[in-house]
This record gives sequence, structure tokens and C-alpha cells, in this order.
Amino acid sequence: MFRLIAKLIDVETGGMPVISLNESFAKENDFHGMDRVVVRFKNRYLVAAVDTSEKMLSKNEIGLFEDVWKKLKVKNGDEIEITPVGKPESTKYIRKKMDREELFDKEIRSIVKDIVDEKLTDVELAAFVSAAYMEGLSMEETSSLTKAIVETGGRLRLKKKIIADKHSIGGVPGNRVTMILVPIIASLGITIPKTSSRAITSPSGTADTMEVLANVSFSIDELTEIVKKTNGCIVWGGAINLAAADDKLIRIRHPLSLDPEGLMLASVMAKKIAVGATHVIFDLPIGQEAKLQSLGEARHLEREFKRLAERFKMKIETLITDGNEPIGNGIGPNLEARDVLWLLKKDRRAPLDLRRKSVLLAGKLLELVGYAKEGEGEKIADRQIETGKAYQKMKEIIEAQGGNPNVKPEELELGEYTCDYEAEKYGIIANIDNKALAKIARAAGSPIDNEAGIYIHKHYGTKVKSGEKIFTVYSRSERRIERAIKLMKELNPITIK
Amino acid sequence: MFRLIAKLIDVETGGMPVISLNESFAKENDFHGMDRVVVRFKNRYLVAAVDTSEKMLSKNEIGLFEDVWKKLKVKNGDEIEITPVGKPESTKYIRKKMDREELFDKEIRSIVKDIVDEKLTDVELAAFVSAAYMEGLSMEETSSLTKAIVETGGRLRLKKKIIADKHSIGGVPGNRVTMILVPIIASLGITIPKTSSRAITSPSGTADTMEVLANVSFSIDELTEIVKKTNGCIVWGGAINLAAADDKLIRIRHPLSLDPEGLMLASVMAKKIAVGATHVIFDLPIGQEAKLQSLGEARHLEREFKRLAERFKMKIETLITDGNEPIGNGIGPNLEARDVLWLLKKDRRAPLDLRRKSVLLAGKLLELVGYAKEGEGEKIADRQIETGKAYQKMKEIIEAQGGNPNVKPEELELGEYTCDYEAEKYGIIANIDNKALAKIARAAGSPIDNEAGIYIHKHYGTKVKSGEKIFTVYSRSERRIERAIKLMKELNPITIK
Repeated sequence: MFRLIAKLIDVETGGMPVISLNESFAKENDFHGMDRVVVRFKNRYLVAAVDTSEKMLSKNEIGLFEDVWKKLKVKNGDEIEITPVGKPESTKYIRKKMDREELFDKEIRSIVKDIVDEKLTDVELAAFVSAAYMEGLSMEETSSLTKAIVETGGRLRLKKKIIADKHSIGGVPGNRVTMILVPIIASLGITIPKTSSRAITSPSGTADTMEVLANVSFSIDELTEIVKKTNGCIVWGGAINLAAADDKLIRIRHPLSLDPEGLMLASVMAKKIAVGATHVIFDLPIGQEAKLQSLGEARHLEREFKRLAERFKMKIETLITDGNEPIGNGIGPNLEARDVLWLLKKDRRAPLDLRRKSVLLAGKLLELVGYAKEGEGEKIADRQIETGKAYQKMKEIIEAQGGNPNVKPEELELGEYTCDYEAEKYGIIANIDNKALAKIARAAGSPIDNEAGIYIHKHYGTKVKSGEKIFTVYSRSERRIERAIKLMKELNPITIK
Repeated sequence: MFRLIAKLIDVETGGMPVISLNESFAKENDFHGMDRVVVRFKNRYLVAAVDTSEKMLSKNEIGLFEDVWKKLKVKNGDEIEITPVGKPESTKYIRKKMDREELFDKEIRSIVKDIVDEKLTDVELAAFVSAAYMEGLSMEETSSLTKAIVETGGRLRLKKKIIADKHSIGGVPGNRVTMILVPIIASLGITIPKTSSRAITSPSGTADTMEVLANVSFSIDELTEIVKKTNGCIVWGGAINLAAADDKLIRIRHPLSLDPEGLMLASVMAKKIAVGATHVIFDLPIGQEAKLQSLGEARHLEREFKRLAERFKMKIETLITDGNEPIGNGIGPNLEARDVLWLLKKDRRAPLDLRRKSVLLAGKLLELVGYAKEGEGEKIADRQIETGKAYQKMKEIIEAQGGNPNVKPEELELGEYTCDYEAEKYGIIANIDNKALAKIARAAGSPIDNEAGIYIHKHYGTKVKSGEKIFTVYSRSERRIERAIKLMKELNPITIK
């Protein structure tokens, strides 16, 4: 045990807490970078990783980063005790996985618990993600991981026999099926507590688009109330912390551009279990620019999801869909919300492809939960739109989530700076590059600026004349529209043949 | 490109440079943690990784850590430009290795270059180390890695036909063979520019022990002069930066406790090539507490070293030795230096096991370079000790390295606080736990306090009476000796049967 004088550093480090030691002090006392110490002040303590790169400390000082001094309530000059401690057990299991051995349930739980408690350094997390990527996780391990994520996250307890849910693997811009499907299902009296994500690399996530119409951040108790009232909701999953472990792993997976299948399966499934889902429909879009690029990949994932679901006695159905072009006309929060409202209100400007896909998925889900006979789900789903019952339910959900149920689609503002992409020749649109559109929409300001985005006038397979508008970009700022225009020229998002 | 106001942070980060951005600013402009940006101020610039965990920055500010503001010569309030840049090519190759593909020569060079230039984040380095550990490196890859490490590090150019060298895989405390072998070889007119390491987890490295007698940190030019004068030297390899890439990887390997074989082979071999070695003897000690624990492991490593050496036209010989107990009586800088001087001066207190092992290895090396016929090397080596020529050479080396050649072994001071470990019963010493002795010696202050360490009175296999002294611990401070005593009781380093 060592006593050192606190020197506060006004920097937060994120991840595992870090303290700095004078390099000579560390050397003399056998501390190495990323070693762990218990840091104690009065009756408060935490475990932190050692850093020795800081040169401004004298031998009797300890540098405390903001995460540490705030938690321990330390002031400059306070006397701090540090005691070296070993690595947590979970690092042994990470090493075991690197040695290509299968991990037991309790070993995976120990890793997940330490991830959530921020007891692992980024380097250790990177080793775990790398091992999971290189060696893969067995179905047994994936199942343990799923359970562990559920245990360490928030959980919704609705006490319903049937709880429906829907999940899309993503990668298709403007894919706002959730905002049509949820009101359809809920309007039939079936519980569907849908949580969605915000955009990470896409121009808008379902949560971003829903946020145009209502609040999306709720506590578990608030959510329970909303769903009791309306049968359904469309909220941001991040707020209720359904998969805390997963969020921490994303910090490492993103910079490594790694998405190990086992981690992905467990993360998706854990979020479904956390809301109590009993019947789930999975949308697996395939496309050159989508996450899944071949039928083989989709079939494989379908199998894996089914195997995993079986272990949790969850009934699921998967649907492999076309992810080659955007679904709907709008890309970006307001433009997508407008599509959704037009569709539910049966406006003639509503995108038919979005209606078709939503009804298809909702229909399958109705068959899965046993509400409709096989082959009759779609008909029932479509009727809910036709009769306006889905729209009525959407208004209830918007109101329950604190929004204005009477908002008109035309009231959703669009960026004042615009630019049209015009066909450079006569022909047929042979390709729409989803990723390019996503980049242009983001450059224009989406999803942070609700008003920014892209509106598609002509879809894949349509004939166009030279100079005809194919899509329009909207932005709130001149600088951003310029950047979007520059990208539009560079990326060549539309191919005409 | 973005313009932001500099806010200096008095913290060094080590590794890749880091800058902090306001979280909302980052989100709006699509920056994620660990993304890379070019940071420019006037005509100076560098590539840094983005951090967004810092909460004290406003949207128009950029937090610059000390490594960054020093290099760019920035003051608080200066206007800084940042431009997002992609990841370096080398990250693709790391990913390729994770996908279990073999890397080409230029791909490995690109990774090593970026490691040395600090263009990779710790998370990326961890992925590379993990992949090298899990997938292994082929001989082709190991050879490319060796070349790349040599290219990016310092190099000694001695223009000699024969340059001898010696390497031990380590893990045996008190193994000061180098300090006997180098003067033997050099006294016969053979060039042996020996670089050694400092202690990392052991109580003393050869460089730490040699430092008791002379300086060990020299530039490449100084080293060239010393070796020209005396044929030999015993210096710290770290000072001449022979394997810069390797040092950076150790930052990550240590906390992960990973020592991927390919990285180890390349690192050892690169250091030999960097001094121009043509003939090298390898000592591979096997023992329960040594790095190599079985004959199988040692044989495997022997083969790999030979295969790698062939590619570099280096002649090597390997010797598998007993690493079960410490070699010599002293553990710790002064105690080991005293053993060495006693031995070279033919004092009756000299440890015979150290003499035997040094003569064995020196003899093999003499046969390898062609100085001695097969079977006659040991005789010649031992004669150099007997005639005092090795001691004479050691004095020349000490003097050339700026030490006092006439230092007497008895003048090397030992810690005033001591404690004896006594046999608890009558019997034969059946085991000496190297790792436990290493821990006790370090607790006593070794290698930072030269005077600290352990002196072994009775070795493995000797008969002892109850209460007889087996070893003595020396320390400079009361607190440290107490800690050593505590460990001595806990670890039970000696087994008597």
C-alpha cells in the first residue's frame, strides 16, 4: 500500500478509470502501464488502471482523472492510498478464448459483468473482440452471452402472454417499416413494445425519425405505462439500457470495424429478451450496399437466429428482403416522418414500396403470433391502414410519448438549401448506391438536423429523361449543402443504362 | 476541414497522439472515438486519434494533450485546423491477418512502420498482437517482420567478417553468463558487441548488473568506438534503439500477458542482425519457473530459431540448459556483480555453477565461429579465466565504458537491513522457486537499489540442518525488508525433503 498526494486532472478518460503515476515511482515499485490498483480515499474506493506516460507528476503524487476524483470526491492535495491488485478473473477467460477453448457459461458471465462494471481496459476488450471474431462463438457461448447481456441490462416486465417484436438487420436507408408495423400490430390489440436505435453511420435511425413526432427517451417505468395504455411504443433502446455490455463493446468494435457474428446475435437477441418478446419477425435485407450481401449470408444468419431463439423458447420468423435500394422516398428524420404520416393517412404521395414491405412483415408477424391464419396476415395488416385504424393508433402512441398527435406531414420543415440531382442522359435507373446516398444525406446534416436529407423522385428501374430530377438534397446550411454537392459529384450515386 | 480553438491539457498520453473534441461537435460532424484526424497548426501537423470522453470542452474547442501541443508548438487560444483522414493501410493488413490470411512482406513492413511512427491506436495494436498470437506467424512472415524491425531501428556497422553474439531466453535469476562469456570471447580477439536488457519482471537484467561497474547507455557511434578498442562490450540495448517496433509492442503484450512466438523470434533475431552478428549461441534454459517449461518447447524453439537464422545466413548453435535453480549465488545488481568479479579474479567464493555454464556456452561459441575444433572450445574458454586474460579484458571493457576497472568485489555495498531464511528441518533442498526468489528480491528493492537482493548459501540438492541459513535477503530500507520478509513467509520459496 502506498500513500500519495492527489493532483486533479481536468480530463475524463471514458472506459475503465485511469490514474497516473510518476514514471520513476512506478518503476521502483514495480507498477507497469495498465496494471491495476485499488485507489482509496476515506471510505470510498475504486479499481483503476495505471498510466505512467504523464511527466508532470513528482514521485509522491498521483494524477487523478476526472472520472476518478469525482467518484471518490477528492480535492487537490488530499492523501490517496493505492494498493496493487491482480487482473480480474475475466482476463483469464479472455486468454482462454484466445487459446481457442470454449468458454463456460460462468466464464462468459464474468467477462460481461466486468465489461459492464468497466473493470477491463480497452486493450483487454480489444483482445476479447478479436478472439470472438477470429475464433467465433459456439451456439452455447452465444447463448451464455445473450443471457449475460440480459442480466446486466435493463428489463421490461409486461406480464403478457404474447409480446410481439420486429428486428431488421439494417443497412437500408429510409427503411421506416417499424413506424408502420407497430401501429398496425398494436391496433389489433397485440402488445409490441418496440425499441429502436439511433443512427450510427446511417442518415437516420428509427429512433431519430420517431423523435420528430414524439419523445423517444423513457425510463422502464414510463415505458411500461405507455405500453399498457396503447399496446405499442416506438422508443430509443439506448435510454433504457437494454444491453449495457453491448454498448461498451461497440466502443471497441467500431474503431476495429469488427462485427463478430456471435456478439451481434447475442446483442440482438438480448434486446428482444429484455423487452419480454415471445414472437419476433426478423427482416434480413440483402443488397450490395446492405449489411448482408448474399443469399448465403442471409440463410446462414437465419439459421443461427432460429437456433438461438429456440434456446430461449422464442418463436421467430425470418424474411429475406431486397435491400438494393432505399425503401420509401425520404431519407433523413423529417423526410422519413413525412413519408410515414402520408402513408398512414393514405395520402397519394405515400411511398408504396414502404407500404408493401410494412404490410408484408406485419402480416407475417400476425401469422406468427396466431392472430391470422397462414396466408391471411397481409390482408389483415393492410386493412388496418385502409380503415385508418393504424393511423388512429399511431396518434395514440405519439400522444402517449408526449408528441402532438395532430401534426400534419406538410408541417415538417425541410432545409431551405436544396440541390437536385438530375439524370445526365436518357435511360433506365440501373443502380442506386445506398451508401453513397447515406453519405450525402449525412453531409447535408442528417440526422442531427431534422430538416436535412434526401427525397427520391425516381426509383430503381424507372425510365428517366436527360435532365429529369432523380433526387433532391435538403440542408439547413449553405456550407453543408456545398459539402453534399461535392460528395454527390464524387460518389456518382446513380447509374443510368 | 474544421477550425477550432486550442485548449492545452497538461497530460501526456503515450503511444499515438490524442486530441479531444466536444461530444456534440463530434456527433454533428460524424467524428467517433479513435477516428483519425490531421491536426494542423501553421506549417506543422500530425495525425491524432479522436477522443470524445472529455466533458470540459465547448463546441468550438479542441483539447490538445501535451504530446500534441509540444510537437506543434501551440499555445492556449491558437486556432487549429483538423481534417478527418482514413485509417492507415496497415489497419487493413491487421484485419487481413485476423481473417487468417498470410501477410506479404510489404504488408508486414507497413504495419511495423506505422507502429514505429505511432500511427496505430492501442486497440489496433492489441488486435494485431491477438491475431499474431491466435493465428501464429509463418516463417515467411516472421522473416519479413524481422527485416522490418531491423529497418526501423538503429544499426551497428562494424565491418568485421566474424561478429559473435549470445542470447538467453531468460527466466533464470542471477544468470550472469554474459558478463563472463563476453570477456572470454573478446580476450581471444573475437568481436562480440553484446547488448542486453534491463530487468522487466526479474530482480536484475544484465544491463542493470553491468551498470554497477560501468556505464551501459551509449550511442551507436560511441559503441562502435568501444568495440573497436576492446573487441567487446556489455551495454543496454534500449539506449541504441535496436528494435523500436518491438518496444512499442511490449506496451501491449505486457498487459495482455501475451508473447506470440513469431513476435518473440523476430524481436530476438532483429536485435542480433542489428549489431551485425554472424555467429550466435542461444541458451534455452528449461525449468518449472523459467520461460521454457519442457524439452518439447525448447526443441521447437530451437528449430524455429535455426530456420529463421538460415534465412539471414546467420550461423547459430543452441544449447538447452537446466533452468531449475538460480545460476550463481547472488541475485540483484551488486550481489551479481560481486559474483562476476570473484569469478574472473578466481576468488574461492566464486560460484562454480556460473563458471561451468559460462565456459560451456563460450566454448560452443568458439567452436561455432571456427576458433576451436569441436570438443575443444570449453578448454580454451576455461583457460582464459585461469590465465586471468578474461579478467584483464573485463577491466578494459569496464574502463572503455567509463567505469573503474580496479573496483574490488568487496567494495560493492550491500543493504544494511538483512534477514536470513533458515531451514525449518533437516533434509535435502528439493526445490528452489525462482519466481518466488525474484519477487522477494524485487520487494527488497532490486534492481532499483543496487544494494538489494538475495545471496544463496545452499543450493539445490544440498543437505541442510534445521536452522541452517539457506539464503540472506539484503535491503536498504526497513520498510522494504519487512515487505520482503512478509513475502518470504507467504511464498515458501524453498522445499526441503
